[in-house]
Amino acid sequence: MAQVGIVMGSDSDMPVMAKAADILEELGISYEMKIISAHREPDVFFEYAKSAEEKGFKVIIAGAGMAAHLPGMCAAIFPMPVIGIPMHTTSLGGRDSLYSIVQMPSGIPVATVAINGGANAGLLAAKILATSDAVLLEKLKNYSQGLKESVQKKDAHLQEVGYKNYSK
Amino acid sequence: MAQVGIVMGSDSDMPVMAKAADILEELGISYEMKIISAHREPDVFFEYAKSAEEKGFKVIIAGAGMAAHLPGMCAAIFPMPVIGIPMHTTSLGGRDSLYSIVQMPSGIPVATVAINGGANAGLLAAKILATSDAVLLEKLKNYSQGLKESVQKKDAHLQEVGYKNYSK
Amino acid sequence: MAQVGIVMGSDSDMPVMAKAADILEELGISYEMKIISAHREPDVFFEYAKSAEEKGFKVIIAGAGMAAHLPGMCAAIFPMPVIGIPMHTTSLGGRDSLYSIVQMPSGIPVATVAINGGANAGLLAAKILATSDAVLLEKLKNYSQGLKESVQKKDAHLQEVGYKNYSK
Amino acid sequence: MAQVGIVMGSDSDMPVMAKAADILEELGISYEMKIISAHREPDVFFEYAKSAEEKGFKVIIAGAGMAAHLPGMCAAIFPMPVIGIPMHTTSLGGRDSLYSIVQMPSGIPVATVAINGGANAGLLAAKILATSDAVLLEKLKNYSQGLKESVQKKDAHLQEVGYKNYSK
Amino acid sequence: MAQVGIVMGSDSDMPVMAKAADILEELGISYEMKIISAHREPDVFFEYAKSAEEKGFKVIIAGAGMAAHLPGMCAAIFPMPVIGIPMHTTSLGGRDSLYSIVQMPSGIPVATVAINGGANAGLLAAKILATSDAVLLEKLKNYSQGLKESVQKKDAHLQEVGYKNYSK
Amino acid sequence: MAQVGIVMGSDSDMPVMAKAADILEELGISYEMKIISAHREPDVFFEYAKSAEEKGFKVIIAGAGMAAHLPGMCAAIFPMPVIGIPMHTTSLGGRDSLYSIVQMPSGIPVATVAINGGANAGLLAAKILATSDAVLLEKLKNYSQGLKESVQKKDAHLQEVGYKNYSK
Amino acid sequence: MAQVGIVMGSDSDMPVMAKAADILEELGISYEMKIISAHREPDVFFEYAKSAEEKGFKVIIAGAGMAAHLPGMCAAIFPMPVIGIPMHTTSLGGRDSLYSIVQMPSGIPVATVAINGGANAGLLAAKILATSDAVLLEKLKNYSQGLKESVQKKDAHLQEVGYKNYSK
Amino acid sequence: MAQVGIVMGSDSDMPVMAKAADILEELGISYEMKIISAHREPDVFFEYAKSAEEKGFKVIIAGAGMAAHLPGMCAAIFPMPVIGIPMHTTSLGGRDSLYSIVQMPSGIPVATVAINGGANAGLLAAKILATSDAVLLEKLKNYSQGLKESVQKKDAHLQEVGYKNYSK
Repeated sequence: MAQVGIVMGSDSDMPVMAKAADILEELGISYEMKIISAHREPDVFFEYAKSAEEKGFKVIIAGAGMAAHLPGMCAAIFPMPVIGIPMHTTSLGGRDSLYSIVQMPSGIPVATVAINGGANAGLLAAKILATSDAVLLEKLKNYSQGLKESVQKKDAHLQEVGYKNYSK
Repeated sequence: MAQVGIVMGSDSDMPVMAKAADILEELGISYEMKIISAHREPDVFFEYAKSAEEKGFKVIIAGAGMAAHLPGMCAAIFPMPVIGIPMHTTSLGGRDSLYSIVQMPSGIPVATVAINGGANAGLLAAKILATSDAVLLEKLKNYSQGLKESVQKKDAHLQEVGYKNYSK
Repeated sequence: MAQVGIVMGSDSDMPVMAKAADILEELGISYEMKIISAHREPDVFFEYAKSAEEKGFKVIIAGAGMAAHLPGMCAAIFPMPVIGIPMHTTSLGGRDSLYSIVQMPSGIPVATVAINGGANAGLLAAKILATSDAVLLEKLKNYSQGLKESVQKKDAHLQEVGYKNYSK
Repeated sequence: MAQVGIVMGSDSDMPVMAKAADILEELGISYEMKIISAHREPDVFFEYAKSAEEKGFKVIIAGAGMAAHLPGMCAAIFPMPVIGIPMHTTSLGGRDSLYSIVQMPSGIPVATVAINGGANAGLLAAKILATSDAVLLEKLKNYSQGLKESVQKKDAHLQEVGYKNYSK
Repeated sequence: MAQVGIVMGSDSDMPVMAKAADILEELGISYEMKIISAHREPDVFFEYAKSAEEKGFKVIIAGAGMAAHLPGMCAAIFPMPVIGIPMHTTSLGGRDSLYSIVQMPSGIPVATVAINGGANAGLLAAKILATSDAVLLEKLKNYSQGLKESVQKKDAHLQEVGYKNYSK
Repeated sequence: MAQVGIVMGSDSDMPVMAKAADILEELGISYEMKIISAHREPDVFFEYAKSAEEKGFKVIIAGAGMAAHLPGMCAAIFPMPVIGIPMHTTSLGGRDSLYSIVQMPSGIPVATVAINGGANAGLLAAKILATSDAVLLEKLKNYSQGLKESVQKKDAHLQEVGYKNYSK
Repeated sequence: MAQVGIVMGSDSDMPVMAKAADILEELGISYEMKIISAHREPDVFFEYAKSAEEKGFKVIIAGAGMAAHLPGMCAAIFPMPVIGIPMHTTSLGGRDSLYSIVQMPSGIPVATVAINGGANAGLLAAKILATSDAVLLEKLKNYSQGLKESVQKKDAHLQEVGYKNYSK
Repeated sequence: MAQVGIVMGSDSDMPVMAKAADILEELGISYEMKIISAHREPDVFFEYAKSAEEKGFKVIIAGAGMAAHLPGMCAAIFPMPVIGIPMHTTSLGGRDSLYSIVQMPSGIPVATVAINGGANAGLLAAKILATSDAVLLEKLKNYSQGLKESVQKKDAHLQEVGYKNYSK
């Protein structure tokens, strides 16, 4: 029984959604990933959203681009947190996706992360689950410690070689 | 049996939607107006959109603001034209509504009019119906003639009194 | 006698306009495609727009970029629906085209689709014609069914190979 | 011991933050509300964010406007979910607040809600807690049912009096 | 025989267009002011634009808001300079008008001034005429001298009373 | 003695400014092209702008990018028309250049053309000179006729080969 | 001999510029305030900017709106820091002013503060002077301490009365 | 003991920050460059900002992208000038970084330069130090003289070869 549902409207969103799944795998959180379009198969979508609670999902991560309705429609049906990932778009840079996801009317929140913020969506799902899972919370602290050490290693490299010789 | 469905997500959209209804009334087109929220009552909404064709609707006019999903979700279900009206919003001026409605992905068009463009939505619905209704087409031409005469009357007034004495 | 007029202001718009024509061909809808610039040959344009009704057009699809006046000027003359396609632009991403097309003043609606939304313009034209053509309406339902199956096939592929091995 | 920390950078944010608190009160969730500025009293802020976990907070709701750093800095320190509320601003309409909160770099998510979305922040906090609290989940379902009924009542009123006599 | 045509699409543009006329009057330049809508009376508009040269116009000042096509369509027909004034708009602040006027395609320039820049449109028309009118050029230099003196007077007032007592 | 001054702040603007010069050459209008930076050599710039009238310039075409002050500062000093060309910019797409050029305060107009609109700046300069030069006016009408024929040739090609075989 | 020059292009900027002067007065920093328009009196402006160093100015604070050239032109001439204040504008909210001031080309920096950020401009000038004035640095630390205490007092009031009874 | 601290949140900002360091080296100003993330290692960051004054820093140059909090948080702690460099971003072009840095609330200024304006940040730091260092001020004047000569050389090249043969 998966704790997190990952759903995207189009397989062009896969590279971003994969980053969310990568984080969940790294932290040992079970998930189910689906391609479901609220626009192209509304009945499939409705069935998905309605059955999400009984499948055991605690969080849904939904990604979509342009007039991005998938996260908001999930939030209209699923009673626990929905995390929305706005996809980058060619013409409007993702502003269309961002506004379509974050500007939800009162009563139906979507927890929105940055444009193309797949990894942060995975981390936010983990943080939500960690509110009642001390082991996971510990893993998240270790993850943060890893981020810190990674920056420190880069700075140490800079101090050693100087900015003119610095290469990532 | 109404030819046009008018639907809005919130009664705060009423002043704009009323302009669409006014046009339909003026042109003698039957319509049904409803307040239905895709976000707050998704099952009611789905039932509405699914039954729209058999109720005889040829066109749906849907207005919504902010993360405006109502027009796009109508278009995902109803097989004939959906006209979307983006509502003006305080913070983003209606860009959020506009992008959420016009930037639909390939396969699911929404015929989008201007921000707060209630009257134009009504006219567009009439123009759609007029593609198979010669009497209505004639009425639309008369309506356009009226617009023309109204501008000409204003110009005549200007020529008469001059711009310094012109009052609308 | 063509049912739909497709018109673009510049042949640089061809790749987008071609998608509209592709849809009309797929659905068996007759059309006429022209390159006509409202700015560079206003008299040719006026003649085109004025004669559109008697040529039998029921819908005009007009695409234009930057200060995009072609759709709106068509709508000022042709009494049935005009569908506007805003072209993507290098500097403003198509916002200039979008605003020039969608923000029409009261009385003269343009049914606006997404930036570069050629296919959706073709579909919207078909939906408009389908309001009085039951055979076409059936074809549109089949088209939608095809979209649905295409998404389901992608999801089935994902379930089979997993996201790490997924390739479009 | 409060489950939710509500923090704002300035008392001008109070009307929006109050809506978050109202929701928590309505759902019986304990909270602590503070005015703390990351910019004007960084040491007070650091102490607050560092001690939040041991005070028992499971979620922090942080609101800020303009160059809004409070939510992101909370998320840099507190290991569980931080919900960010971008405040409306006079000059940029809240885009500055929104971008400063939602566009967090990889590793440090902030769950962002709509501009001035106080009530939604409260609801999102509740949904997060409801992932491990069946009683709260039930309350949330009742809350959603209330939203649905409120829309239905408005529609019933519309059907009764017609749009010309409709008053909110 | 007027040297300058002033044309607006709607009498709601009058307060801005009046400022252009005021400047022309102050500088003794003959003009003709008209309300003509390219959208609502395209044939009247075409006739106007086509006859502008033979009426003796050297410059046209055209103001319009939202999807503002009037200046660009004038420039498509009239062979001498067209000055465009983008009107402020409630929802988009005049960006829609500005983009619709300034982003003209290659071959058809519109000399665009600031949003609501009526006075500057009048001055620009005068500067254009002054390229072949030494007396008018002298008047323009006097006008500029007046602007300079007005600023100097304000600064002198500031130096006298100090900023705390300064009142416009 | 040149009739038109062409000035740019940086030689990175050369490709756009060259299009203005190309038009002037094609129409037989004398010009002088300079690279002068209002920011990097303000005294050189001031001398240039002050002496422009006595050098015989009737129009200045000034191009600049980002915080583009060159056109506006020319207009502050030179008493006849200044045409501003906003350069495309990487980060803001040229909005920064556009706003810095078009939003001039009352009293100091800049005739602004489209982002990167070099050719249109040249044409606008020609149209300004044509207000007192009947030969040039005739050339401009021929130029417009050429634009018209070029579009008609493209359409004829389309009618011949069809859109599927159309190649620019 | 004043240490700081405060200059604005129009007396409509006075309320914002006054906040800068208020801060300088509070911190005991000498200043001279002038209304000088780079556009309306370029020679007066040039003289001002050129003589600023010998008058003893160490910093110039320049405020301007719309196509705001005053700060950048000061920075082109004055060799020490220029602080730019973008004014709020009705149509574009101050984006025009902001872009015209902050997007300076390489070589000519303007230290830009927030839209209408008069007080911050005064504080930034003080911080610049404090790099070589230990007494002033101490005053700035006290000022910051005052900000901190003001927030703490507000929070104490909130803790005492609760958010429902909180009044600013 | 370094006079200037250069700090960036991520080594992806290095190419821009390097330009700031290049200027400081060219002008003989001592500096220390660090990679420190306010988000990923808040305690390291706090320690850095708190100790900056006693390390002898007179100015901090901080660069960051997206929800860019590093410059503002430096300014909350360090009592002398903080210069902020907004990084260009893929989706929003750097508007997110710019707004997060420049729109600081009253009391905590950040001296903001252009998007990716590394060189200007270095120059602004030098100008700040030059308010109390006559030798450095002289160097800055020479630097400006070099800019001027570089433009003059380009113009001389243009005059020699003409625009058609001009190559950068």
